[in-house]
Amino acid sequence: MNIVIVGLGIIGGSMAMAIKKYTDHYVIGINRTRATLEKAYKCGAIDEMGSEQSLRNADLVILGLYPELAVEYIEKHGDKIKKGAIVTDTSGIKSAICPKMDALAELHGFTFIGSHPMAGKETNGFQSADPDLFKGASFIVIPGNVQYSRVEVLCKLANDIGFSSYRFTTPEEHDRMIAYTSQLPHVLACAYVLSPQCSNHHGFSAGSYRDVSRVAKINAELWSELFMENREPLTKEIDTLIENLRLIRDQINASDRDELIKTLQKSREIKESLD
Amino acid sequence: MNIVIVGLGIIGGSMAMAIKKYTDHYVIGINRTRATLEKAYKCGAIDEMGSEQSLRNADLVILGLYPELAVEYIEKHGDKIKKGAIVTDTSGIKSAICPKMDALAELHGFTFIGSHPMAGKETNGFQSADPDLFKGASFIVIPGNVQYSRVEVLCKLANDIGFSSYRFTTPEEHDRMIAYTSQLPHVLACAYVLSPQCSNHHGFSAGSYRDVSRVAKINAELWSELFMENREPLTKEIDTLIENLRLIRDQINASDRDELIKTLQKSREIKESLD
Repeated sequence: MNIVIVGLGIIGGSMAMAIKKYTDHYVIGINRTRATLEKAYKCGAIDEMGSEQSLRNADLVILGLYPELAVEYIEKHGDKIKKGAIVTDTSGIKSAICPKMDALAELHGFTFIGSHPMAGKETNGFQSADPDLFKGASFIVIPGNVQYSRVEVLCKLANDIGFSSYRFTTPEEHDRMIAYTSQLPHVLACAYVLSPQCSNHHGFSAGSYRDVSRVAKINAELWSELFMENREPLTKEIDTLIENLRLIRDQINASDRDELIKTLQKSREIKESLD
Repeated sequence: MNIVIVGLGIIGGSMAMAIKKYTDHYVIGINRTRATLEKAYKCGAIDEMGSEQSLRNADLVILGLYPELAVEYIEKHGDKIKKGAIVTDTSGIKSAICPKMDALAELHGFTFIGSHPMAGKETNGFQSADPDLFKGASFIVIPGNVQYSRVEVLCKLANDIGFSSYRFTTPEEHDRMIAYTSQLPHVLACAYVLSPQCSNHHGFSAGSYRDVSRVAKINAELWSELFMENREPLTKEIDTLIENLRLIRDQINASDRDELIKTLQKSREIKESLD
């Protein structure tokens, strides 16, 4: 396949590197910042430095852009995409993206399949890209009404570049689950480090501090967009968490050890049953 | 030194293994469950299976017991401890323990030094013990009014068995900081997995889910005691966290992207400044 990757940040860059490392597909990069594009070419992450004209011959277009920018990009350049080509985004929200992309696909005659690689780091940009970022990760696919044979093309590629499983879902289920599994931990990490105690943690902290605070090294531009575009499921999850924190706090305050043990035991059982 | 370790759980067991592996001290184990004591002896984690009579010749007594049990143990057996011997607990709370231990030390003529090894796992018991558990960890010491030459004996041992730094502190500062760095992440992990979404996380989760939920595999007996005995600092930290979660939720709800970016940016700066 001729694969065009638009946006060589950590996700687009890692996709490029992984496709080059593990497949024989031809990879063309497009990137706003020319220096990054050149860097990607020089280090062999892409076969060619492309432009919007490269869309005309692409069999697969992977968008490694922020969600709104991804839609804007296709609004502007969708007419250049070859009929029958597959376009996939990689963005962390779906309800706000997929219907718009479906309409653009219909209009221009390409096939849109939403996807979300469940991998990342607490750093970003092409300098954080890694051909093995997707090793063992889950590849979430929103097939919509697309023919299964087209979806298979994308899943085959995901498998080739290291993903260990796919998960087919709807935009709504995706957003509800991601609010919990990914966005809430990011909100949490940020709220956690805002405590006045945080600055004194040295010498008093170990693994549990490190793990909860890790993703506080957040990309504020990107995540504020993801949070805003997923307002309802996310604020619902924040509220559920606050409720459960209050439950535990009240049991501690009431010196109700039996009830507290029951709550902690329940948490333990949930966690153990899912590991 | 003749070192007696009372309680061969993950901390006491790891202490025994580490002392055997990295020093020439003679290690005597005492444990309520005989089978564990025999296991520790057979695998070479201790040189001798001891009893309370072993306290009479100990230069150093390390208590690997739950906090209240540690005090009860010394109340019952403190009279057998050699004059001038050093006794240290390893428990995760200090204000509720140190004054009682100081009084018992005064009464029986031994030296008490509170300590808290900042290392652990989400599993427990002797089967989780590991001679390298303390590698690179911080050793918190509550020296109280003890002569520095005595404290040095304990710090030298900590250094020998892998700790990379000490932190001298008071019971009050210890408890306030541990409420934040260790207890709050445990409360958080338990509250987090209580969400109804948790059971569906497979295929939708990656590193941030894994890190936040890790310590939900909690030892409910132990941690309920630690939480209860540190009620005030801990509930204060839970309240601060709830407040900061609300702040972020309200900014998302209000679609106030500029303010949200400012908050996330502040979190990022705090986290980066401390790494």
